[in-house]
Amino acid sequence: MCVAKKILFVVLDGAADRPTAATTTPLRTADTPFLDRLAREGILGIMDVIGPGTPPGSDTAHLSLLGYPVNEVYTGRGPFEAAGVGINVRPGDIAFRGNFATIKDGVVIDRRAGRIDETKSLSDAIRAQLHLDCEFLFKESTGHRAVLVLRGEDLSPRITQTDPKRLGALLQSKPIAKDASSRRTANIVNDFTRQVSLILGNHPVNLERVRTNQLPANAVLLRGVGSVPHLVPFERRTGLNAAVIAATALVIGIGKLTGMRYIPTKGATGHVDSNIDEKVKNVNKALKRHTFVLLNIKGADEAGHDGDFNAKTQFLTRVDEALSNLAIDESTLVIITADHTTPVSLKEHSGDPVPFLIRGKGVRADQTSAFNEYIAARGGMDRIYGHDMMPVLTDLLGKGVKFGA
Amino acid sequence: MCVAKKILFVVLDGAADRPTAATTTPLRTADTPFLDRLAREGILGIMDVIGPGTPPGSDTAHLSLLGYPVNEVYTGRGPFEAAGVGINVRPGDIAFRGNFATIKDGVVIDRRAGRIDETKSLSDAIRAQLHLDCEFLFKESTGHRAVLVLRGEDLSPRITQTDPKRLGALLQSKPIAKDASSRRTANIVNDFTRQVSLILGNHPVNLERVRTNQLPANAVLLRGVGSVPHLVPFERRTGLNAAVIAATALVIGIGKLTGMRYIPTKGATGHVDSNIDEKVKNVNKALKRHTFVLLNIKGADEAGHDGDFNAKTQFLTRVDEALSNLAIDESTLVIITADHTTPVSLKEHSGDPVPFLIRGKGVRADQTSAFNEYIAARGGMDRIYGHDMMPVLTDLLGKGVKFGA
Repeated sequence: MCVAKKILFVVLDGAADRPTAATTTPLRTADTPFLDRLAREGILGIMDVIGPGTPPGSDTAHLSLLGYPVNEVYTGRGPFEAAGVGINVRPGDIAFRGNFATIKDGVVIDRRAGRIDETKSLSDAIRAQLHLDCEFLFKESTGHRAVLVLRGEDLSPRITQTDPKRLGALLQSKPIAKDASSRRTANIVNDFTRQVSLILGNHPVNLERVRTNQLPANAVLLRGVGSVPHLVPFERRTGLNAAVIAATALVIGIGKLTGMRYIPTKGATGHVDSNIDEKVKNVNKALKRHTFVLLNIKGADEAGHDGDFNAKTQFLTRVDEALSNLAIDESTLVIITADHTTPVSLKEHSGDPVPFLIRGKGVRADQTSAFNEYIAARGGMDRIYGHDMMPVLTDLLGKGVKFGA
Repeated sequence: MCVAKKILFVVLDGAADRPTAATTTPLRTADTPFLDRLAREGILGIMDVIGPGTPPGSDTAHLSLLGYPVNEVYTGRGPFEAAGVGINVRPGDIAFRGNFATIKDGVVIDRRAGRIDETKSLSDAIRAQLHLDCEFLFKESTGHRAVLVLRGEDLSPRITQTDPKRLGALLQSKPIAKDASSRRTANIVNDFTRQVSLILGNHPVNLERVRTNQLPANAVLLRGVGSVPHLVPFERRTGLNAAVIAATALVIGIGKLTGMRYIPTKGATGHVDSNIDEKVKNVNKALKRHTFVLLNIKGADEAGHDGDFNAKTQFLTRVDEALSNLAIDESTLVIITADHTTPVSLKEHSGDPVPFLIRGKGVRADQTSAFNEYIAARGGMDRIYGHDMMPVLTDLLGKGVKFGA
């Protein structure tokens, strides 16, 4: 067998960084003997997931890495979150991410309603009592999170969000239509905000929360509006039968919307405490039935957003240990990369290139012997774009799409 | 403070080169301890200012480096020269660069009228006596140079130039309209050429020149025709409050047309004898009031055009000495690059990539320890395009424009 047959695509979410004062990064500091071995055996490079200097969102980054033309298919994050929490969205649906929040006299006083944890009965009430001028689906997600999907004719994502994104601001109860054809959608969303406040205001859960000095969840703030895109199934694009293993709704949703099989993992949380070992076990199982497995490990991104260098470093050390139990040989092409840089110095995504490595049959192994931002820049792949990654990988499988004769 | 706050963008005009027989370049030969220190502390790469193998003009190069989409905004050099010599051009104006020249029996016998130096009274005569079928502005520039701006309805830059660009050729008195809608402009320019010859032919300055055996400036050759583009102000694009320090009208004009503050420098000539120390003093002052300073140093380009390896090398040594007086620390992101390669072997711009370095907070410093075409190709930035440079820099300031969520 002269070419690899399968692909394991590992996204260490937000793992890349910028140097701190000590000229180092978590990836450079973490103890990663397994990744370093893959680096020795494989080829490295740096990658502009969207473009040089453009900070990617996690959504656009994953779409680009999977080979989708983000500029054409992406209008907002909502659709992927909605698919991720299990709503069976359809192309054309308008989807939002939502937060249960606390408002008082029209002002947002807590964007997470005191980090409320259990919202099922609140969501039940919304589903039962809400009446909108179009079909809708509403579902609670983890913690204070939820999603709203509007379905019907003449709906548009070209409206502003109701979430002011900061405390003390007025709830933008009336979203602004960005063009005349979006007025109807803006009115429906306005109706949603108004009715939800009435439904939740006197809900027993909230009365009990107020009685026990907790903030009531008496509003739902919406953001990330997007139109559900028509995505050509990943298998039709690549010939690969794909599974996704991830904890965050977003990545699960992208997997579902591209037709991947989602394999849930017990104890996978998307935080630094996630059960990565269990994920790796699932990967080993999935590789027996699938020719492509997307594994997203989220913790490093979270530590980056928290600005916690040590937590990020320790998490990456733990990731390396877990990955060392991968049951893969040269016949599986393994790619390790990040979807974006999340510098602890910025606590936000940045547009710095991310390092990547590819190991498996057919790669032109270079002289590198460690996996980090610095070594990768000296790797044999030089610098590529995120949307080039899937063509490179499928070509390594001997499935490149020839242009010309 | 975890990110740099300001940008100093240094363009060593035409400084890059190709190897001579001795496999070396002026940048490699020059004594540049300051640039080498920046290289050690920063990150290097090579850059296709326009595209691989495409020799950039100084105009398109600077526009691209500043992040403007040259393919959309650039129709010719005239508009930038005109703005640079102080004409308050408006979008839609048609502008030309001009040369005072000597013609005899309709043939160009000297494109620079014996390198005439003082043309103010000739220009005054043109302004006073010329009558065109549209509003016009004419202004002398340094030496034999001048600019012409046509203003009004139905004007077009799609005409050929009147400057034949070589001796012994007929003055192209009647420029050719490239399409029907450009005929009016061609006729106006024809009128300009005809009237200017009459106005200058018997001008006292020329009579005196002939009497003293100097070539008369009895014609104005036009080239570089372009339509003044609408350029979104640099500050609106980047959030940076910018100043430009340069000697050449072109770069000053680009600065003015993008809304930068132009800071004149005493003794800055654009030649190898330029007062670079004075420019550096001005940079140090400008960085106190501005968050972006563009410094163009022209001499190396001139030496390249002259094919003078030693002059180019000595100039770069002198540049390094002057730059070592920059009052900058890590909180100012400094970028050093060239707008294009001007090989002494070609005496013209070439399409070779140019080296660049970035030093300041947040850059992933690489292993390089000198600044030249060879070392830069091994740098941690690998290879980027000119139009990616500004997004990379603003992202390093923590002002990257995120795509996605």
